[in-house]
Amino acid sequence: MISPAVTGSANSNVPTAGPARPKNIIIMIGDGMGPAYTTAYRYYKDNPETEEIEQTVFDRLLVGMSSTYPASVSGYVTDSAASATALATGFKSYNGAISVDTEKRSLPTLMEKAKTLGLATGVAVTSQVNHATPAAFLAHNESRRNYIDIAESYLNSDADVILGGGQQYFSDSLLAQFTAKGYQHINEFSQLDAISAPKVLGLFADVQLPWAINDNQSHKLSKMTQKAIDLLSQNQQGFVLLVEGSLIDWAGHSNDIATAMGEMDEFAAAIEVVEQFVRQSKDTLVVITADHNTGGLSVGANDKYEWNPAVLHKVKASPDEIAARAVADNNWQDVIATLIGFTPTEAEYALLDNARMQGNAPLTIALRKLIDVHSNTGWTSGGHTAVDVQVFSSGPGARLFSGHQDNIDIANKVMSLLPLSAVKQ
Amino acid sequence: MISPAVTGSANSNVPTAGPARPKNIIIMIGDGMGPAYTTAYRYYKDNPETEEIEQTVFDRLLVGMSSTYPASVSGYVTDSAASATALATGFKSYNGAISVDTEKRSLPTLMEKAKTLGLATGVAVTSQVNHATPAAFLAHNESRRNYIDIAESYLNSDADVILGGGQQYFSDSLLAQFTAKGYQHINEFSQLDAISAPKVLGLFADVQLPWAINDNQSHKLSKMTQKAIDLLSQNQQGFVLLVEGSLIDWAGHSNDIATAMGEMDEFAAAIEVVEQFVRQSKDTLVVITADHNTGGLSVGANDKYEWNPAVLHKVKASPDEIAARAVADNNWQDVIATLIGFTPTEAEYALLDNARMQGNAPLTIALRKLIDVHSNTGWTSGGHTAVDVQVFSSGPGARLFSGHQDNIDIANKVMSLLPLSAVKQ
Repeated sequence: MISPAVTGSANSNVPTAGPARPKNIIIMIGDGMGPAYTTAYRYYKDNPETEEIEQTVFDRLLVGMSSTYPASVSGYVTDSAASATALATGFKSYNGAISVDTEKRSLPTLMEKAKTLGLATGVAVTSQVNHATPAAFLAHNESRRNYIDIAESYLNSDADVILGGGQQYFSDSLLAQFTAKGYQHINEFSQLDAISAPKVLGLFADVQLPWAINDNQSHKLSKMTQKAIDLLSQNQQGFVLLVEGSLIDWAGHSNDIATAMGEMDEFAAAIEVVEQFVRQSKDTLVVITADHNTGGLSVGANDKYEWNPAVLHKVKASPDEIAARAVADNNWQDVIATLIGFTPTEAEYALLDNARMQGNAPLTIALRKLIDVHSNTGWTSGGHTAVDVQVFSSGPGARLFSGHQDNIDIANKVMSLLPLSAVKQ
Repeated sequence: MISPAVTGSANSNVPTAGPARPKNIIIMIGDGMGPAYTTAYRYYKDNPETEEIEQTVFDRLLVGMSSTYPASVSGYVTDSAASATALATGFKSYNGAISVDTEKRSLPTLMEKAKTLGLATGVAVTSQVNHATPAAFLAHNESRRNYIDIAESYLNSDADVILGGGQQYFSDSLLAQFTAKGYQHINEFSQLDAISAPKVLGLFADVQLPWAINDNQSHKLSKMTQKAIDLLSQNQQGFVLLVEGSLIDWAGHSNDIATAMGEMDEFAAAIEVVEQFVRQSKDTLVVITADHNTGGLSVGANDKYEWNPAVLHKVKASPDEIAARAVADNNWQDVIATLIGFTPTEAEYALLDNARMQGNAPLTIALRKLIDVHSNTGWTSGGHTAVDVQVFSSGPGARLFSGHQDNIDIANKVMSLLPLSAVKQ
């Protein structure tokens, strides 16, 4: 029902010249990144010295919004697996499903269709590479929790680039099978520079990559994204790449605003890498969305008409990192004051002291709550909420994503923009 | 910087035939209606018997989003006065400002410009007519709290239609001045039918109109909207009308999800009246947005991946109404069970009993919280939050509102679509 024949456009993100159908398609998912995250990020990035509030990359690229509900058996609030299945296949399924339908039958994925048409494919994520979102693009499984199964099934994905974390899910024997299939396997981020051709399986952490707030200036997601583009571009017929800012969601589950803003910054920087490539290549479409909202984040809370992002800029490490250091140090008050960026009051120190005596996890939670109070940030859940998410796009076909749509519509529109048939090189 | 010369469009809400510049402009504001409200409303309206989730009028008309921050002196979280000032004038001001700038100088409003150009103007709202949002369109004042001043200044607005609540702010002598200026003044909603020509001042409640949930099938906002359109259309040069679903915000401040969904339904019905008029007239632009988000509403909460709108459909009256009846009735348990639509557990009754002994207000709060628990609804504040709001539009010029914008951009775009000069009749 969707016509991919796009000519002319009202969307300033869409070049007026250039092909109607993209050669390359980049899907970017901010896991858990509902509207409050992109709003918070704008004010987090604002220079308070100027009256003007600067636009973010999200503001530049916004074209529409999307509903995220799963198949009715799972109600109105999706998990990452069902929403990734929707985005990868164009079908609703149950929470936990990895590109299988409600009867647990495999659903054809965007990546499989791309491969059939001779395109290169890849994923670059900050979670383990076999986490729900990338898994739905590269595998089929009745449960997102079957991490080992999913890692093994990547062998059959024929994906050209697989970058992220997850070493613990890839046994030596499995890695040997990847090598036998022609994959270069690397475990150190510094090895990525030297990779100059596909295929590559890069696993840079036991599970997920470090929080961006603790890995300052590293911009690993941007570097993985740039490398993926460089490698996949070697395929003359084009490519489909999935990039995920996976840990926005993890910070959201923990109701951790300082860490979440660090992950937003990481994801925004990766989008800017892609935005630049889209501008230069003229035949690349990028579609950016979230799979759902996490945590019920609100920008302002507790009856007060304020949000104070300046507090967040002073936080020098994630609360879990601060807690670990403070638990291990008798001079813990100074450790906290230095790393959190302000000196807590006596009453606040008393609360932290009590939490510290209970250990790392309670102190981590107490620190997050302290940062919430000072920044006036609100949360309603450690899980997901159903609020619609935004859709951002640029490049040939971008106008198709304007206005309201459902997450399966996004997949169907993207698939409608694939080449009509494989082109012989 | 904005070109009003619109030809062609990528937005399906924009007729491909018809004039580039609208004759009539209708601004509709859902006070406090952030993205979680329109999402919640979609699932509230869903028929759970069908796999499909039906689109709402909001889904049909979505074109973009808007930031809502006030002038920097008031931080990042706006109140209704500053945001209404932005939407009515195209200028940021401080929280509390009614179409005055940060130096308290009057700012020219959309309605004043429309009058200069010979257009008819009107407002139809569910709050008192002199509440912040309509006030910023019809008056100037250094404080939204100066209700009497604002009511008096409406005498100079020359507005053709003023419909809503607020009898307590209009003294007999003020009403006599309105009558002397040619206004028909009515106090009963049933009198509205008989009004067949402007000008009219209709004040149908002491302060705000009744909650929609307690005034079932009345659809007063739809009727006021239809009447305003009928009356204003008599001006051959066109009109500018402001319609506000004012009480969405009031229910949000009270963290009252059942009442909020009733107000959303009331506002959606009024939008459908306008949508029909836009389709028929072909020369009318409607722009719908929210001034801000209220309450930090989240659709799902408490770590649970569910939201249960079926609970809300069974609630037969607003919690404040249920509380009033339950406090006055010895058989209060049955009153509550009947009106809330389910039988509370013993533990829940014990909580309600304790609240009831403290009076109406504590029982109202306890009932709201009980409904939150059963529907799994979350809130973070009794005030506003800064999340971006949506923009919906249809009719000539609608494409201008696509993508991201700021609330002052909305005003500037609307003003750019006014006639270039007054046309003699």
